[in-house]
Parts: sequence; C-alpha cells; structure tokens
Amino acid sequence: MNKQQRKHQTAAILVIGNEILSGRTREANAHLAAERMFERGCRLEEIAVVPDIAERIISTLNRLRADFDAVITSGGIGPTHDDITMESIAHAFDVPLIEHRYVVQAMTEYYGKGGLNDGRRRMARVPQGAHLLRCAKSIAPGAIIGNVYVLAGVPSIFASQLEVILDNFGGQAFQRREVEVCLPESSFAAALDRLQAKFPDVEIGSYPGTLGNKPCGKVCLNSQHIESLEAAENAVRSMVEALRSDQESP
Amino acid sequence: MNKQQRKHQTAAILVIGNEILSGRTREANAHLAAERMFERGCRLEEIAVVPDIAERIISTLNRLRADFDAVITSGGIGPTHDDITMESIAHAFDVPLIEHRYVVQAMTEYYGKGGLNDGRRRMARVPQGAHLLRCAKSIAPGAIIGNVYVLAGVPSIFASQLEVILDNFGGQAFQRREVEVCLPESSFAAALDRLQAKFPDVEIGSYPGTLGNKPCGKVCLNSQHIESLEAAENAVRSMVEALRSDQESP
Repeated sequence: MNKQQRKHQTAAILVIGNEILSGRTREANAHLAAERMFERGCRLEEIAVVPDIAERIISTLNRLRADFDAVITSGGIGPTHDDITMESIAHAFDVPLIEHRYVVQAMTEYYGKGGLNDGRRRMARVPQGAHLLRCAKSIAPGAIIGNVYVLAGVPSIFASQLEVILDNFGGQAFQRREVEVCLPESSFAAALDRLQAKFPDVEIGSYPGTLGNKPCGKVCLNSQHIESLEAAENAVRSMVEALRSDQESP
Repeated sequence: MNKQQRKHQTAAILVIGNEILSGRTREANAHLAAERMFERGCRLEEIAVVPDIAERIISTLNRLRADFDAVITSGGIGPTHDDITMESIAHAFDVPLIEHRYVVQAMTEYYGKGGLNDGRRRMARVPQGAHLLRCAKSIAPGAIIGNVYVLAGVPSIFASQLEVILDNFGGQAFQRREVEVCLPESSFAAALDRLQAKFPDVEIGSYPGTLGNKPCGKVCLNSQHIESLEAAENAVRSMVEALRSDQESP
C-alpha cells in the first residue's frame, strides 16, 4: 500500500474450507484476525465461512469486497484439488491466473529442479496483477489483488502472513474496558440503554454469565476515543453502585 | 415441523454479535452446530457473523433463508439494548413483533408479578406467527418462524435449544474417515485429484500438518454413502502405499 493511501477502516474475513463447515476443524484464523483488527483500529464487519466451491467463493468475495474497505481470505491455496482459492479470486476479478515467474524461480532454488512437480507449480499461480504476499513460514506465497488479501489456512502461516499486511489496516486503535455486574441483566437493561444513548462513540454490550447460581456477567465497552471510553466506564460503574444500594436498602 | 414435511437438507448459521467481530469472544456455537449438522446429514453451507446492526441482520438473514433450506441464528435475544435479533427477524419477515401471552404468563409465574420488569418483558417478544422454542436451560424462549430458528448466544442455552430442533434437519448421516499421510501434499496432489474424480459422492480434502520437521497431514473423506466412503478410503490407503514404495525404491 502506498503511504499516501488511506488505511482500511473496515474489513471482512472470508474463510474458505469444507473442514470448518463439516465440524471437523474449529476455525481459528478469524478470531486471530478479529483481535488484530481491533488492536489496529480497523472495524471487522463480517466473517463468512463458505465451502470449497468456486461459485460460492466468487459470489461471496465480490459481495464483501464491494461492501468493505478490504477482505482477508483464509484457506485453499495449497497444492491439492480442493485448493481453488487463487483461481476463484482470478475469476472474481476477471483476470487470468498466471504462473508467477518469481515464485517458480524461488521454488526451483528451494526444492531443486527435479522437486518442482505439478502440485508445487499450482502454488506458483496467482491472479494476474496480484502482488505476492510472502512471509517467513512458507515458500508458497499469498497474494494481494485490489483490496483482497489472500492468506493460507494453516494457522501458523496465516498468522505470519497477517503480520505482514497489518500496517495497511486501521489507524486509531480500539480499546476495551469491562465491568463485572453481578445482577440480572433485566435489572439494568433500561439504565444501560440510556448510557448507550449518552455515549454514542462507545459500543456498549452486555454479556450474561453466572457465578455459582447467581447472575454475574460483564458489561463490555469498546471505543477509539479514550476519554469517552473512560467516562462511559465510570458511568457504568456508578450505575452498578446505585443499583446495588437500591437492592440493599429496605 | 409436520412429519410429512421434508427435513432440511441444507442450512446456514447466522451469528449475531459484536463480541465475536471485536475479538473479545471466540465463537463456539457455529462449531457445535456444524458437528451436529454433519452427524444428522444436513449440509452446513455457510456461517456468517454480523454485528448488532438491524439492517445487517435483516439483509443477511433474507439472503441466507432464500438460499438454503433453513437458517439457525445465534445471539441477541437477551433483555439489553444490544439484543435486537427478534425485532430484526420480525422486520425481515415483515410481521409485527408481539408480546407472547404464554411467555408473559410463564415469566410472571417464575419471577412473581413484581419481577416482570421491562427488560424481562423484552424477552417475551417474538415475531408474529412464530412458534416458541423452549428448552430446559432458560425461561426466555427462542423462536421458529418460517425456515428460521432463533437461538440464544449463551453457549449452554444454544446447545440446549439446538437439541430441541435437530430432528428437523438432515436424514442420512455424514460419516468421516481420515488417513494420515506423511508425505508432502504436492507429491500426492495429482493422484488424489484422480481419486476425487473417481468418487464423486465422497468429499475428499487434504489438510497439511507436520510431525517434527517432516510433512505429516491428513486426507479427510466425508460421505453419506458408506460403501463409497470405504472404497475411497481404501483407494487413498493404496495410493499412499504406492507412493511410499516409489520413494523407497532406488
């Protein structure tokens, strides 16, 4: 990304993989990306998981890249028949899939001339016009084309590739505060609604939980604006205090 | 579901919650549903995670319920201001949100008359025409409207509600076999591609891994047809044997 360009303020994650949808594998990359986007100050707007079917990858990618500043894909860039992400993305951008000379050369050096079989050659293919996304963990590259970042599904490689691209995302970090509230949600719902209206630049959520048999959840506050965040946190703490005194009074 | 009706053969999961997209919480319900759908023989076609924003919930729900036999939603049915799933679903179906007399009565009995505050009353609201989805874990119900199943986000309640509705899904269970393959994926990609073509009713995936420094992944086979599954598994094992002998021969 050129330094003059604006960083991505919104993003979506597109996870490609039958292994997630069939319950074989619990997805991990989207959660990592969600944490990193939050820290960077990029709003993650959607996570979509679709099967290894070209039309589904293409239609979902085209929807997400039109709706948000950037899309990060995970999975389907290996050498086997079920790895169809690169060709699907080429199709979505209406460009040919080309064998990238640089990758062929790097692989030939790495594996030796006899080692560059058809499977490995598959991993040298990227959509025409894409930039290579290289990382320390894999000789096979990811790709960047338009506002789409094509990453591997293997978690260690995904994580390594993600670090390489993070500078293109966000700007003003989100911060989070949590307040434990050991009261039924229904007892503070109305008060919390008023606080949300008072602090529009703080995202306030309530997540119920229990401690033993008693309700004990968390009110969670997210914001890019530290002063509002601290004011809202104090307001939530005061709300809880007031409700507790109400309960304790005769 | 009427017994005469066909069970859902395809489904999508719509997860509603800022806490997932901000990286606060690692999503768990979609993975559980994926496992259960697989066992039941219903094909899970998509998982979508969207924020607590009515328009986003409505548009995603309308897309998914048109594309697949059924949609299961997770989250946003509690008493606080960020719980907007029921009203969004009513909007998607273009019906009013009504306070359900049965739920008000059950809550009045449970909490006592003074205990039915506004927050709890919020949880008595369902889209007009919806059936209640009750379970052992919560007095507040989920809902079923058309082909949409509205479940709680709290994992223990989601799991309990999911068990109640599972009979409406699937028919012929999927089964899975896995074959460990301690070879580079690129060395068997072409052979595996041929096997996939030979067994069209078996879904074959390859998932790389390592054992120490050496490649050691899994070939995963899913099918609703046990005879094809076993034949394909045997074919993969023979393929691996043949490749190993090749490597060992001078």
